[in-house]
Amino acid sequence: MTERPQPSPRSAFRWFCSITTRWNDNDVYGHVNNVIYYLWFDTAVNRFLGENGLFEMNGTDPIGIVAETGCRYFESVSFPENIGVGLVLARLGRSSIEYRIGIFRDGGETTIAEGRFVHVYVDRDSRRPVAIPERFREVFERELANAVPVSRT
Amino acid sequence: MTERPQPSPRSAFRWFCSITTRWNDNDVYGHVNNVIYYLWFDTAVNRFLGENGLFEMNGTDPIGIVAETGCRYFESVSFPENIGVGLVLARLGRSSIEYRIGIFRDGGETTIAEGRFVHVYVDRDSRRPVAIPERFREVFERELANAVPVSRT
Amino acid sequence: MTERPQPSPRSAFRWFCSITTRWNDNDVYGHVNNVIYYLWFDTAVNRFLGENGLFEMNGTDPIGIVAETGCRYFESVSFPENIGVGLVLARLGRSSIEYRIGIFRDGGETTIAEGRFVHVYVDRDSRRPVAIPERFREVFERELANAVPVSRT
Amino acid sequence: MTERPQPSPRSAFRWFCSITTRWNDNDVYGHVNNVIYYLWFDTAVNRFLGENGLFEMNGTDPIGIVAETGCRYFESVSFPENIGVGLVLARLGRSSIEYRIGIFRDGGETTIAEGRFVHVYVDRDSRRPVAIPERFREVFERELANAVPVSRT
Repeated sequence: MTERPQPSPRSAFRWFCSITTRWNDNDVYGHVNNVIYYLWFDTAVNRFLGENGLFEMNGTDPIGIVAETGCRYFESVSFPENIGVGLVLARLGRSSIEYRIGIFRDGGETTIAEGRFVHVYVDRDSRRPVAIPERFREVFERELANAVPVSRT
Repeated sequence: MTERPQPSPRSAFRWFCSITTRWNDNDVYGHVNNVIYYLWFDTAVNRFLGENGLFEMNGTDPIGIVAETGCRYFESVSFPENIGVGLVLARLGRSSIEYRIGIFRDGGETTIAEGRFVHVYVDRDSRRPVAIPERFREVFERELANAVPVSRT
Repeated sequence: MTERPQPSPRSAFRWFCSITTRWNDNDVYGHVNNVIYYLWFDTAVNRFLGENGLFEMNGTDPIGIVAETGCRYFESVSFPENIGVGLVLARLGRSSIEYRIGIFRDGGETTIAEGRFVHVYVDRDSRRPVAIPERFREVFERELANAVPVSRT
Repeated sequence: MTERPQPSPRSAFRWFCSITTRWNDNDVYGHVNNVIYYLWFDTAVNRFLGENGLFEMNGTDPIGIVAETGCRYFESVSFPENIGVGLVLARLGRSSIEYRIGIFRDGGETTIAEGRFVHVYVDRDSRRPVAIPERFREVFERELANAVPVSRT
């Protein structure tokens, strides 16, 4: 993450949702605080998983544990503006998935912030990494894989 | 607030907005935590003020300070369900306004929680209570006063 | 809650804890936002329950559900000041307990805000109110009952 | 950030503070949610700046804007455990500073999570990057520079 980051267009993402901002998202400077973006990441990833039937996991499914997150901020946004979130698959390993996440202004064409979010799937009991089940992999690849290779990830 | 509380219908409120829930709104019990409702109250009141031109106040306008809040919880709600918020005027005094706030499930007809929110308007410098300006009063009465007298407030 | 509220001294409370404020507790006005006080209420009540062995409840114990909360704000506080929280028993019913909560500045002698917090104990499965178990009542009365009658609650 | 991350000892950090956890820090899995760590980062950095007289900046001082943040999670922590935060200078550029941040259990010797936090100093009006003033640089180097070279940053 050392090269100079550039905002990405909507076409760099595959799945989208909208989130309403809240009065308390704004900090003392009148802009959404940097931490709030991570609430949006959690919300988008979990909505995506829920819409695809991977949220109400049965007792034999592994659990996704957050291993790493990150965000670059390009522009600020303020309540009461709402925002859009885009997801795309950055990397799918044996037991981990990395989402790349774009934050957009309502109607905006390029990201105002970009995040990364790494889930490691672990066994519910032993908490050791396990292979991501095939039905999860199918969803990730079908719904999130980018047709256009993204050079800068 | 001693009598046994009962949920209210949508018709008991005048102004409405929608808010998306967030993954982190859920607490360890899997339901939206009691504190989050107050984030929604703040958000609804400030959206209402903004939509009516009372948010970007000019330098001579007084400031609304939160003096008292409260909430009764009837039913739980969980991410990823979204919620609706209704506002109605509970009391308009010389320098204070009390909002009554209803929280609804998306499409729900009766409140799952009800709140109160008291703003006292104060001078920006002295921080002493002042009379609510007439243009504020007009908005509050026009947009929030309930046609149907509410007996239980 | 209609009479004019007055701050209370430390002697009106029985159990105390300290909480560090966070940068994000401050809102756009540079003071801790009204919602944050409720995070402190939750934290103090759950710390109290934990210290008294009522937090890691066994499978037959009922669960405390938040039925009502409220707060009056007397003075503001700002990060990085830390705060103290005091608890006292306001009312102990068959299946519900109401805590009265005082927020103090670090070293302050009178409350800068006061809250109420009502837990209703319910059966884990049916979610219907049940009698508060005797070992809970004993803790509440021994640790939280006020020697000095509080006239204004 | 591709090599396998390892927890660091306390000796890898220079400035420390303690933060109390809150009931609501725990998410549905009973552990502090990944987003909360970023609230701690903000809190620690701003406490450090405040203690060193760089928080209440005069009108000619530039403003620190958050440009990038990130966190790796090694172990979980849960309310009511409290945590410690350590800061060390990772990089001091002409107009930006990168803090490396360690999260410790109360009394723990190695990090349970590590973060990075990049502030870019900008002019208050133009919002363009400016050189970090000398009195800021002196504080950063005196209070945060690590005597022991950190190989893995």
